Amino acid sequence: VSVQIVEVFRVVSHGPGDCTGIKTLIEQGVLDPNDIVAILGKTEGNGGVNDFTREYATTTLSGMLAPLLGIAPTQVEQRIAFVMSGGTEGVLSPHLTIFTRRQTTKPAIQSKRLSVGIALTRVFLPEEIGRPVQIEETAKAVQRAMADANIDVCSDVHYVQIKCPLLTAARVENAHGRGMGTLTGSSYASMAYSRGASSLGVALALGELDSPLEENSVLKDWHQFSHVASASAGVELMHSVVIVLGNSPASASNYVVGHAVMHDAIDRSGLLSAFVSAGIASSDDLVSLDTGRIVNVFAKAEASPNGQIRGYRHTMLDDTDISATRHARAAVGGLIAGFAGHGAVYVSGGAEHQGPAGGGPVAVVARV
Amino acid sequence: VSVQIVEVFRVVSHGPGDCTGIKTLIEQGVLDPNDIVAILGKTEGNGGVNDFTREYATTTLSGMLAPLLGIAPTQVEQRIAFVMSGGTEGVLSPHLTIFTRRQTTKPAIQSKRLSVGIALTRVFLPEEIGRPVQIEETAKAVQRAMADANIDVCSDVHYVQIKCPLLTAARVENAHGRGMGTLTGSSYASMAYSRGASSLGVALALGELDSPLEENSVLKDWHQFSHVASASAGVELMHSVVIVLGNSPASASNYVVGHAVMHDAIDRSGLLSAFVSAGIASSDDLVSLDTGRIVNVFAKAEASPNGQIRGYRHTMLDDTDISATRHARAAVGGLIAGFAGHGAVYVSGGAEHQGPAGGGPVAVVARV
Amino acid sequence: VSVQIVEVFRVVSHGPGDCTGIKTLIEQGVLDPNDIVAILGKTEGNGGVNDFTREYATTTLSGMLAPLLGIAPTQVEQRIAFVMSGGTEGVLSPHLTIFTRRQTTKPAIQSKRLSVGIALTRVFLPEEIGRPVQIEETAKAVQRAMADANIDVCSDVHYVQIKCPLLTAARVENAHGRGMGTLTGSSYASMAYSRGASSLGVALALGELDSPLEENSVLKDWHQFSHVASASAGVELMHSVVIVLGNSPASASNYVVGHAVMHDAIDRSGLLSAFVSAGIASSDDLVSLDTGRIVNVFAKAEASPNGQIRGYRHTMLDDTDISATRHARAAVGGLIAGFAGHGAVYVSGGAEHQGPAGGGPVAVVARV
Amino acid sequence: VSVQIVEVFRVVSHGPGDCTGIKTLIEQGVLDPNDIVAILGKTEGNGGVNDFTREYATTTLSGMLAPLLGIAPTQVEQRIAFVMSGGTEGVLSPHLTIFTRRQTTKPAIQSKRLSVGIALTRVFLPEEIGRPVQIEETAKAVQRAMADANIDVCSDVHYVQIKCPLLTAARVENAHGRGMGTLTGSSYASMAYSRGASSLGVALALGELDSPLEENSVLKDWHQFSHVASASAGVELMHSVVIVLGNSPASASNYVVGHAVMHDAIDRSGLLSAFVSAGIASSDDLVSLDTGRIVNVFAKAEASPNGQIRGYRHTMLDDTDISATRHARAAVGGLIAGFAGHGAVYVSGGAEHQGPAGGGPVAVVARV
Repeated sequence: VSVQIVEVFRVVSHGPGDCTGIKTLIEQGVLDPNDIVAILGKTEGNGGVNDFTREYATTTLSGMLAPLLGIAPTQVEQRIAFVMSGGTEGVLSPHLTIFTRRQTTKPAIQSKRLSVGIALTRVFLPEEIGRPVQIEETAKAVQRAMADANIDVCSDVHYVQIKCPLLTAARVENAHGRGMGTLTGSSYASMAYSRGASSLGVALALGELDSPLEENSVLKDWHQFSHVASASAGVELMHSVVIVLGNSPASASNYVVGHAVMHDAIDRSGLLSAFVSAGIASSDDLVSLDTGRIVNVFAKAEASPNGQIRGYRHTMLDDTDISATRHARAAVGGLIAGFAGHGAVYVSGGAEHQGPAGGGPVAVVARV
Repeated sequence: VSVQIVEVFRVVSHGPGDCTGIKTLIEQGVLDPNDIVAILGKTEGNGGVNDFTREYATTTLSGMLAPLLGIAPTQVEQRIAFVMSGGTEGVLSPHLTIFTRRQTTKPAIQSKRLSVGIALTRVFLPEEIGRPVQIEETAKAVQRAMADANIDVCSDVHYVQIKCPLLTAARVENAHGRGMGTLTGSSYASMAYSRGASSLGVALALGELDSPLEENSVLKDWHQFSHVASASAGVELMHSVVIVLGNSPASASNYVVGHAVMHDAIDRSGLLSAFVSAGIASSDDLVSLDTGRIVNVFAKAEASPNGQIRGYRHTMLDDTDISATRHARAAVGGLIAGFAGHGAVYVSGGAEHQGPAGGGPVAVVARV
Repeated sequence: VSVQIVEVFRVVSHGPGDCTGIKTLIEQGVLDPNDIVAILGKTEGNGGVNDFTREYATTTLSGMLAPLLGIAPTQVEQRIAFVMSGGTEGVLSPHLTIFTRRQTTKPAIQSKRLSVGIALTRVFLPEEIGRPVQIEETAKAVQRAMADANIDVCSDVHYVQIKCPLLTAARVENAHGRGMGTLTGSSYASMAYSRGASSLGVALALGELDSPLEENSVLKDWHQFSHVASASAGVELMHSVVIVLGNSPASASNYVVGHAVMHDAIDRSGLLSAFVSAGIASSDDLVSLDTGRIVNVFAKAEASPNGQIRGYRHTMLDDTDISATRHARAAVGGLIAGFAGHGAVYVSGGAEHQGPAGGGPVAVVARV
Repeated sequence: VSVQIVEVFRVVSHGPGDCTGIKTLIEQGVLDPNDIVAILGKTEGNGGVNDFTREYATTTLSGMLAPLLGIAPTQVEQRIAFVMSGGTEGVLSPHLTIFTRRQTTKPAIQSKRLSVGIALTRVFLPEEIGRPVQIEETAKAVQRAMADANIDVCSDVHYVQIKCPLLTAARVENAHGRGMGTLTGSSYASMAYSRGASSLGVALALGELDSPLEENSVLKDWHQFSHVASASAGVELMHSVVIVLGNSPASASNYVVGHAVMHDAIDRSGLLSAFVSAGIASSDDLVSLDTGRIVNVFAKAEASPNGQIRGYRHTMLDDTDISATRHARAAVGGLIAGFAGHGAVYVSGGAEHQGPAGGGPVAVVARV
């Protein structure tokens, strides 16, 4: 039978315009550029509205890959899903994770293995950001990405990465010029709305919702959330990109993916459960953790919206100097790096409707 | 025999000008203000030069305690050692730790128990900051504080907290006006010099140095460091305050203190060793950790000066938006809170000569 | 007849906890503390949610004045209107402006002279911030303050300073706990709503509105604004403080006040008009400007909400590192200081409904 | 005779990766890409160490121009001098200024007109930054650029723009690895050293020094400075780029350049003198200022190192949240935009040895 083989490479970056890591793998014949389906990166900007390191990295990668793929740089972004998450606060280290996929006629493996699928939504209008239509269009794209990954069962989906748009002053003006109102005039606030709607779209697609969504549930009804969604907003696009990671019987990869939910930003128990889910720890202790098999950890971090963590006040939401997403990435990054043994892990900020309020999903890709 | 009994109270703060927590303990008769020897606080400023939350908190506490002690507010700071460390990034939560001490004629306990001692240096001149004279004067004060704590053996000292001065533009001008040069014209940089010299003073006093210090060892020779020093620089003073915590045979307290060194910002193994040292974990695993007995964790955090953690690049030192000390506190605070179970722990930034480069001491005060 | 004599003193601050400037004036007999009606200060915090320099300055001043006035520190704030505006970006210099007032039987002067009046609103609930009730209660307080200043004609009012509350995470939770929703969950955003509603309250009181306000006009209908309102939000109060400055026939002061509106952040022509209005420049040129008679300049600054200034894009609203209010204060402060000849001027951020969108009122108090 | 004709174009940028402005001019035949000698840009990063908008803009422009020039992107930077200055704080607006030059046999014009010349230094080693060798190599390059501009007389040079390197953690390590010490370990501090040494290089070349430089004059002896130097440090290069602007008898351009020195950050009189020098104002007043003829204003801004402006304390150097260079650009940008009538002016931070301490040179390019 035809199965897919996914491979995952993590390379460090020396700067947002650096792609020597991936280039070297290609030159060494280790990685065939034609097989690349997705590249997830942590870049060293502020992760906010004016973080241009994301588009700079994407532009540089597209420019490097275009001649190798025999297409124009602008076409590369149509073919490969780029998700650059800005912000390497604290111990986090800029890096890229490259997912490749190829079909093979090898016999399928008994157990389910890592599989990846991708899909794009249509282009959104500024006034659609954070509203029901963004949820619905995202849900449709998630289902297309599951099909692309050969995953039938929702519980086999362990991570859904979404890159979604945000509002800028110009985009808000554009809507106003057409007589339309946006949900917010603040670019920074729009990032939260967009991540929230995207994540509820994942929850809708995977049947994770308790009840039908109400009209204004985005950033309101925190009880509704996805256990596997991870959304990043970026200024460089107006559509959303969806990447599904799961384990599929139609995969012959040497990797598996697992996940758990961190219930708050300091939930080490939840974090350890993710390692257990990926098969590299036997229980909630550190001695059994086989860090050598970790390919990457993908987690979302956020400042709990009620201003507290386990009853203790945090100051992230009241800080006018540093945005709450930067605070949260730094703290959760510190915890995860302490377990993984290094800072080149993918911790992304803004976990609205991604896990419970103040917490977030955490997925682990591990070698078998 | 006469022994000392130390008690330790940790109360949360609702803001830098809030002292309702300690006031309530006093009103309830739990805490006698006459017994207070030291108050260590985490306040929610930026921890940098223009962090006025430290002096605001100190002023407010002095003003509240003065009438209870029957002295003027300015005299309170002569009697009680206040150390306010600014910066509650990420999950860290503003709080105060109050140390009280009283003499009693109770029989001494077989085992050594928590003891505290304090001392002040003389007032420094701006041009002395970061230079050998600051090291030497600090060392003398450490020895006076050890005597005050009834500790004879250096290895019984587990934590030496120092509050030291920094340079402002006005202080640099003052030195220039007298024809003297300061080590740096940058206030932010002066904080590092002052913390470094203070910590080498601790190392000198406790016999922790490999070899005699050279003329310009501060912020140069990273191999020289103390395993127990914790220094914070603040704009509100020009002398240094020294607080020694250790275990003494002349103490009948219900607390003990232990410590270890984190070798880098993600050293979970070092962190666990500190819990073992304090007698609340049996080995390097999480299952045995008795978090219920933790009174507080005192740790220093810093961005490793070589720009890397275990070979992975970090971006803290190259970030012009957020100071490296804020990054480091957020990350290390995330890790420690993940172990301690909450964010009201004392993580302080800038660990120059406090533990190895990029790491720092971590002390744990625990109930017996 | 009985007339009032207002005096205005501007003193520099060496820090938010410094009140030596005003203390010296009192000790020298230049300023009678019993005459103080209002103190407007620029303090060196970030001007945002977690700017504690405002309450620190107010607390320190109250503590210093209390024994001189023979009342408790907490009563001082009931008697004197303190308005501390955080943020001395760029060339701005921390300082205090003290307004005193006393009644006298001197004969009235032919021309109208500087007069001051103050009033407080009731305490607001978190859910009232930014909503019509805040507008209406503010308007009532403005009218009481006008009466207090002996000003009958609205056109004699040249400056209305308001200090208004903001939301914190705790206050939002408080409202939620009572089943009420606040206009926003973001503290930073709430500052804009509160300033906007306060300013529309001034416009309502002074008859500056084009048409009756609609339900949701705050931060929506930018055509409605006051030409003389200046509102600052601060975490330290939940009611609003209103200070009216104008010229009154019942004043025998040696000062006058004038004002104009800056139509955008670079409107030097508007700025010069304010000097003309105060009688210290003869026309729109710099040669005639008599800077020696300036006591202080009071201006509001903001990033134009459409993202442009005279057709050129600005980046203030899209900056996740520095809040837009800090950017705006720095830029407008640079312009005004260039005209006034020094940076100890009162430039305050966030000019929602204070002057046209992107601009703001500017008032000048000058010696006759 | 053969004369040069310089043309100057200012185009706005919609982002650091946007080059539609210049592209449109090329497509319309207004600008011949082969004539471009220099592009000076203001990009919207933080202007600090981790400001990647500068290299992103340069990379994008090189990539766009390469096929038009028939050379590789990396060769474009050898041929055209790119100087991207990060930081558009406050009212400043991102834009590019493009200088073209071509030889013609037109008869020379009686008066001197705008002329431009460029030169590169050799690549510097990290340990050379801020030291005498950087001064000397820069001086040589300035003289080569003057020759390239056909300018013989130093007083005809009105502006010398330099782009110089800075230190990163990696570069400091590189020096250490070779047993060499750098002047500072801080990237941010290294920017000041590099700008300072570059500017003293200009002063040396143009005979502006009072006396021979002493060994450690950089960032020490503030009396030594250039009246026309403007230096920006950037992470993207290790050599320096020198651009000389002046008026030459061998130019037939329709532009002239003038300059003056602002003695501090609020020196409106100095600013007006620059407009007078460029022939578009008749004296120190605003009425005569012909803003319509301004092509661009090039100014340097800095926080005065003594912490004061005209005796009033500023807080820029003590702010741990916002770097002093950002503060200074915002303030000076506000003043200059108030005079120029818009924010698309080139105000660059860090004026060490560029004008007197706390001030800076300001040049004006105007249409004849």
